Amino acid sequence: MKTIPLVPDAIARLRARAPLIHNITNYVVMNTTANALLAIGASPAMVHAEEEVAEFAAISQALVVNIGTISAPWFVAMEMAVASANRAGVPWVFDPVAAGATTFRKQASAELAGLKPAVIRGNASEILALASGAASGKGVDSTAGVERAEGAARSLARNFGTVVAVSGAVDFITDGLREARVANGDVTLTRVTGMGCTASALTGAYLGAGLDAAEAGVAALVTLGVAGEIAAAASEGPGSFSVAVMDALHALDDAALAARARVT
Amino acid sequence: MKTIPLVPDAIARLRARAPLIHNITNYVVMNTTANALLAIGASPAMVHAEEEVAEFAAISQALVVNIGTISAPWFVAMEMAVASANRAGVPWVFDPVAAGATTFRKQASAELAGLKPAVIRGNASEILALASGAASGKGVDSTAGVERAEGAARSLARNFGTVVAVSGAVDFITDGLREARVANGDVTLTRVTGMGCTASALTGAYLGAGLDAAEAGVAALVTLGVAGEIAAAASEGPGSFSVAVMDALHALDDAALAARARVT
Amino acid sequence: MKTIPLVPDAIARLRARAPLIHNITNYVVMNTTANALLAIGASPAMVHAEEEVAEFAAISQALVVNIGTISAPWFVAMEMAVASANRAGVPWVFDPVAAGATTFRKQASAELAGLKPAVIRGNASEILALASGAASGKGVDSTAGVERAEGAARSLARNFGTVVAVSGAVDFITDGLREARVANGDVTLTRVTGMGCTASALTGAYLGAGLDAAEAGVAALVTLGVAGEIAAAASEGPGSFSVAVMDALHALDDAALAARARVT
Repeated sequence: MKTIPLVPDAIARLRARAPLIHNITNYVVMNTTANALLAIGASPAMVHAEEEVAEFAAISQALVVNIGTISAPWFVAMEMAVASANRAGVPWVFDPVAAGATTFRKQASAELAGLKPAVIRGNASEILALASGAASGKGVDSTAGVERAEGAARSLARNFGTVVAVSGAVDFITDGLREARVANGDVTLTRVTGMGCTASALTGAYLGAGLDAAEAGVAALVTLGVAGEIAAAASEGPGSFSVAVMDALHALDDAALAARARVT
Repeated sequence: MKTIPLVPDAIARLRARAPLIHNITNYVVMNTTANALLAIGASPAMVHAEEEVAEFAAISQALVVNIGTISAPWFVAMEMAVASANRAGVPWVFDPVAAGATTFRKQASAELAGLKPAVIRGNASEILALASGAASGKGVDSTAGVERAEGAARSLARNFGTVVAVSGAVDFITDGLREARVANGDVTLTRVTGMGCTASALTGAYLGAGLDAAEAGVAALVTLGVAGEIAAAASEGPGSFSVAVMDALHALDDAALAARARVT
Repeated sequence: MKTIPLVPDAIARLRARAPLIHNITNYVVMNTTANALLAIGASPAMVHAEEEVAEFAAISQALVVNIGTISAPWFVAMEMAVASANRAGVPWVFDPVAAGATTFRKQASAELAGLKPAVIRGNASEILALASGAASGKGVDSTAGVERAEGAARSLARNFGTVVAVSGAVDFITDGLREARVANGDVTLTRVTGMGCTASALTGAYLGAGLDAAEAGVAALVTLGVAGEIAAAASEGPGSFSVAVMDALHALDDAALAARARVT
């Protein structure tokens, strides 16, 4: 099995292009997502109205769709944005938050997963739920081991022709042929809301910078993992950790990323 | 009049159970609420779509309904979630934000208050508005003394068979028979948005951990008050205070809570 | 051309009145906006339901309308709130976020700009888009020089009988007759989401405190610029900068503002 590499100039390429990232995401993390994208060097926009999502998706460099606080009208807007992105050749990331928690989420996430996302990024519970159609986990936390989810990720990747990135203590990224495991990160990333959503947004940023889908997934998870490690060393709890993550994302460069990356 | 005690192992019970707390709350505080619940050891979820609120409320350990940015469709979802929670025996907290400010809020809050919440948590203006049906206060700030609201709280508690928790310089909690006053806190809690909403969310967390309604209200207000005191000593203004509150909630344990609690 | 002055007791007047500011703003910045308004001494409320916006706008001291995450139902609510504010003599601020980015935004912002805002506050791209009806800029960032936007601002101010405030490295404020340039600020203000929205909210706060529209625009941009300078000196990246801005807004007084103001 070939390994998906960490692109050595990923951050430089991102900052040179400053890609416009269209986010249709949940209310809880919109501020965090926008600030994380700005900190790493992308240009975020949150646009969700049916009247404009198609037009906006087509002029973006990447689209990120996150169902954290989905509702029926937002699902319509997500489908419109995705269709437009696909027509325009704009890559998109799908974050199936709490995919197995309710019937509505199972249906919505199954439909969106079938619309050719470049990357699906979730935790183990979400990837298992998406792969099996079975409810698992109790909400938005990861309760299944990443290991158990690896088979599900490979199946999803092959069946849907997409990259699947599973966040966990060790992240797992696969395109069905190549794989990578990322051992960066800190447990405090799970004690702050929206860090998984941030991983999805960073994946969108790297896609928008021109990395291929598998490379974008690896670069995003290394970036967030390293930022989390730096933040953990500089903070005293989840509040100061959140602040330090943004500082770390802004201060990171490719040399620091390469020095700390734990990709196998 | 008997006193409502601070349960000595409240935080330990909360962290052992890590209850799933279903929040239908306002856009302003969703991030703060989620992070506060994570910091104290609960598992937050924000779910509001009519298609899934009933299903999700029934699998949660507690529900928190907050009308801060209410709209007609969200009111429908709140009623559906509450009905489901009541059927499933899931306790719920009602936060009547700015209850007296507009006709829409007066009607919505009067209806919700009648749907058997375990706890109603508001500031003095809100509790007075709810009790009297009369407009009072100018928006979301507390402008009435907690003392004036105590009579209103007792009436509400008896008429609706609920616990009423009134936030203020000294908080007041009553179930109509027992009472407690909590003198913990710091004035900066009023200079940051969403701290009242956080008190309601923490009440939900303690309900989800198995405390009875009156004990959950006392534990929540002591917890937030003590976290506010610790944060005030570690910060230089409302920005750093917000960050420090999250750090303090995460660092708190029952021994620290008992040592600092000012419950009478 | 006469200069618009910095009112010497602007902050004192704001804190003495603690004006209630009604915000219909975007999901991304609601928390930041509420906290910035609290930090400077105003009383924020976020109210957007069609059932109550008219009633609430009429009892507020100022209204701020921001189209950052606009949708069709919110546009209806904005029009209702504005009509009510105008009837009641409540001044309102219009923030045309990403005005040129989509057809929907061009139409919505053109309509709102015609409804007699006291102040229009945007970046150069937004003001140019509003003035020309032509798309410009790629989303929510400022990509046009403030200088190029000055002519557009003067035209808008004269045609609509309003004050136009253009944020940038040097801010420009005009009522069509008088002008001011504000050279305060720090580049990190552009690396954190919602600082432009904060400028609009602070403008609303000063309007609510009784300053005239041009003076409110100048006071708001000096206030945010000075807070940004203080925050930049006290922080290590965009995360800690955001926190420090709130601390700085709370600590500021008129003497500090006058000492640092760079208004010409």
